[in-house]
Amino acid sequence: MSLIVQKYGGTSMGSPERIREVARRVQRFVKEGHQVVVVVSAMSGETNRLLGLARELNPDADPRELDVIASTGEQVTIGLLAIALHKLGLKARSYTGFQVRILTDDAYSKARILSIDEANIRKDLAEGNVVVVAGFQGMDAKGNITTLGRGGSDTTGVALAAALKADECQIYTDVDGVYTTDPRVVPEARRLETITFEEMLELASLGSKVLQIRSVEFAGKYKVKLRVLSSFTDVNSTDMGTLITFEEDDTMEQAIISGIAFNRDEAKITVMGVPDKPGIAYSILGPVADANIDVDMIIQNASSDGTTDFSFTVHRNEYKRALQVLESKVKGEIGARAIVGDDRIAKVSLVGIGMRTHAGIASLMFKTLAEERINIQMISTSEIKTSVVVDEKYMELAVRVLHRAFELDQPPTEEHLKP
Amino acid sequence: MSLIVQKYGGTSMGSPERIREVARRVQRFVKEGHQVVVVVSAMSGETNRLLGLARELNPDADPRELDVIASTGEQVTIGLLAIALHKLGLKARSYTGFQVRILTDDAYSKARILSIDEANIRKDLAEGNVVVVAGFQGMDAKGNITTLGRGGSDTTGVALAAALKADECQIYTDVDGVYTTDPRVVPEARRLETITFEEMLELASLGSKVLQIRSVEFAGKYKVKLRVLSSFTDVNSTDMGTLITFEEDDTMEQAIISGIAFNRDEAKITVMGVPDKPGIAYSILGPVADANIDVDMIIQNASSDGTTDFSFTVHRNEYKRALQVLESKVKGEIGARAIVGDDRIAKVSLVGIGMRTHAGIASLMFKTLAEERINIQMISTSEIKTSVVVDEKYMELAVRVLHRAFELDQPPTEEHLKP
Repeated sequence: MSLIVQKYGGTSMGSPERIREVARRVQRFVKEGHQVVVVVSAMSGETNRLLGLARELNPDADPRELDVIASTGEQVTIGLLAIALHKLGLKARSYTGFQVRILTDDAYSKARILSIDEANIRKDLAEGNVVVVAGFQGMDAKGNITTLGRGGSDTTGVALAAALKADECQIYTDVDGVYTTDPRVVPEARRLETITFEEMLELASLGSKVLQIRSVEFAGKYKVKLRVLSSFTDVNSTDMGTLITFEEDDTMEQAIISGIAFNRDEAKITVMGVPDKPGIAYSILGPVADANIDVDMIIQNASSDGTTDFSFTVHRNEYKRALQVLESKVKGEIGARAIVGDDRIAKVSLVGIGMRTHAGIASLMFKTLAEERINIQMISTSEIKTSVVVDEKYMELAVRVLHRAFELDQPPTEEHLKP
Repeated sequence: MSLIVQKYGGTSMGSPERIREVARRVQRFVKEGHQVVVVVSAMSGETNRLLGLARELNPDADPRELDVIASTGEQVTIGLLAIALHKLGLKARSYTGFQVRILTDDAYSKARILSIDEANIRKDLAEGNVVVVAGFQGMDAKGNITTLGRGGSDTTGVALAAALKADECQIYTDVDGVYTTDPRVVPEARRLETITFEEMLELASLGSKVLQIRSVEFAGKYKVKLRVLSSFTDVNSTDMGTLITFEEDDTMEQAIISGIAFNRDEAKITVMGVPDKPGIAYSILGPVADANIDVDMIIQNASSDGTTDFSFTVHRNEYKRALQVLESKVKGEIGARAIVGDDRIAKVSLVGIGMRTHAGIASLMFKTLAEERINIQMISTSEIKTSVVVDEKYMELAVRVLHRAFELDQPPTEEHLKP
């Protein structure tokens, strides 16, 4: 007998019929002899509907009250799922975040979980109950209702799995696992049986929307075995999606490159003709940070005339504001020649734990793009990823040719395996 | 400065625009220097929508889970109203029943309030907040969410007013007060400026839907000054609806008859030819009570041949079931001649505290009905009411002629006043 935490997202809980399907899937695991804790999201669209009502009253609504309102979506679905489970003859009890005592900090709308009191859940499980817990929500030390931010139900699932020392945390979603890249762009994209936490972190942060990044961090920190799988398969399907493993677990086959992430969310800004002297990065990025604009890639190229060009990327939504900050607060101060920018870029990233030990990955990447005459505007690397910025019109082409060049459509062979 | 508890029902909270209106009304009282606690219902239709989802999954759903689901309706409106109040520049904080600690018993869907912890509310009021509390809900001693049943928000309002020793509890609804009878039946029906608790109790239990009966009982028990008024008047209207007073408060003008209640909710059953001997009432009504069927009026007529006819009324929904119980478990046992019934009856009741001291009320009532050739099938009286059962097709006529005969369209004059 295992203890399994299952998390079902909004589309999985989107209608009474879908909720009945979820109940049947839970029933299957109970019949197989497992203890099951289910974490649910609100019905798809519900959180937006509720926040829309609030925004109609006040576009700048108080976050405490928004959390009171938004948290009701999950409170409805825990009740509905418990009722559907009863209908199948299972014992089940629902819990709000408040009732579990999922204690968070008081950062409304993006609270972080501090502790989970798992005593009642354990007792219910021991008495043969399926325990249904509202995702996305908790309470602060003063008893205020908090929410964990978008995708927070994944985090609730992982945190509960950690607190209960569950054997596995299964994240059910509308895709059946993690792919080498987006199948809508590369039809030959292959589903991965396993991927490491670090790779998943890079893929999640780079725009692969399968899992919320905080839940992956959480899973890594508490060594929770995490599995992504579809709630749209037959309930008796033996398909086990993608397992997210720990790197040290080297019984797993592991390719050098696991996947390709990409996004069009960023814009590039270059401050040209900047004096090449210490402190210049801070002079440029300090005012940007003060304006609460997050910076992603940063590149500084020395040039021979004592000046340098300083480039960085920001979210596309912040592009105009970042340009204004630079023009008004930076350009004159540091004597830059010009501020130029481009919001028609895309970032394409190769991700793979094997990069640590394999040379030549970056050069094959650059060669592949060069053969297609795709100009690389920026490069940034980490231990397990290599990202390039290209003109956005080449994004799909870049992803496709890289997918082929690294043979991601093929299951890993001996040659691709980690030593 | 007074402390006022205001309760707004579902139609008052039915849309963002209506909620904005409620906020403006609250603002008016704050500007006048009052401390205000607001109790709100769910948006009209929302509780039914939520319970409909549950029923779709399981018509026989677990009451604990139904309460988890149903209580979200008010959790949404407390947040929305707080946000609307902020928009007007007022300080406001929302509380669920859980957060207040409105402790109830564990009778899901019809829980009774045991205690209210008013410490946080007092603190918030002292700090200049409007406090917005979810009606209809509480928690039991184990932390389960409970609801108080339909109309329970009135009860929350009155209970909070009692706990806080508020100066007044204002129940805002879609009617502007308590009328001598339903204006849809008698256009001349007159709004009452005051009515006693006892009269209100009779009117409420007899089918006048203005206030939930438990909230009136509660107000009487804790001597809460209760006022019924409309949320659909201009926010600056000085109209003060109907005040529900204590009988002993004899500064109030008080008519002999306050109003006429009526309903079609009942059916009549007669057990004919029953031996006229001790214990016969129990032999008949015992099995009915065992089947959980509530009995309202009971009449036993002795006849000369040693047998008697025994009549009583039940809710129309229970009529068929009551007949079955009598046929199968009573008729043979007691040797009754026949069981007959009629579900096309109506009950019409005169209510008035003045009946205690004034003779002739019943006889004027019977004379008035006789003049219209309306046959009286059953009569039942209490200290402050006289009820008759008539053929339902005469109900409206009976109400209209009685309204005229007792001059309820006229404000009370000296002649109508209590001594």
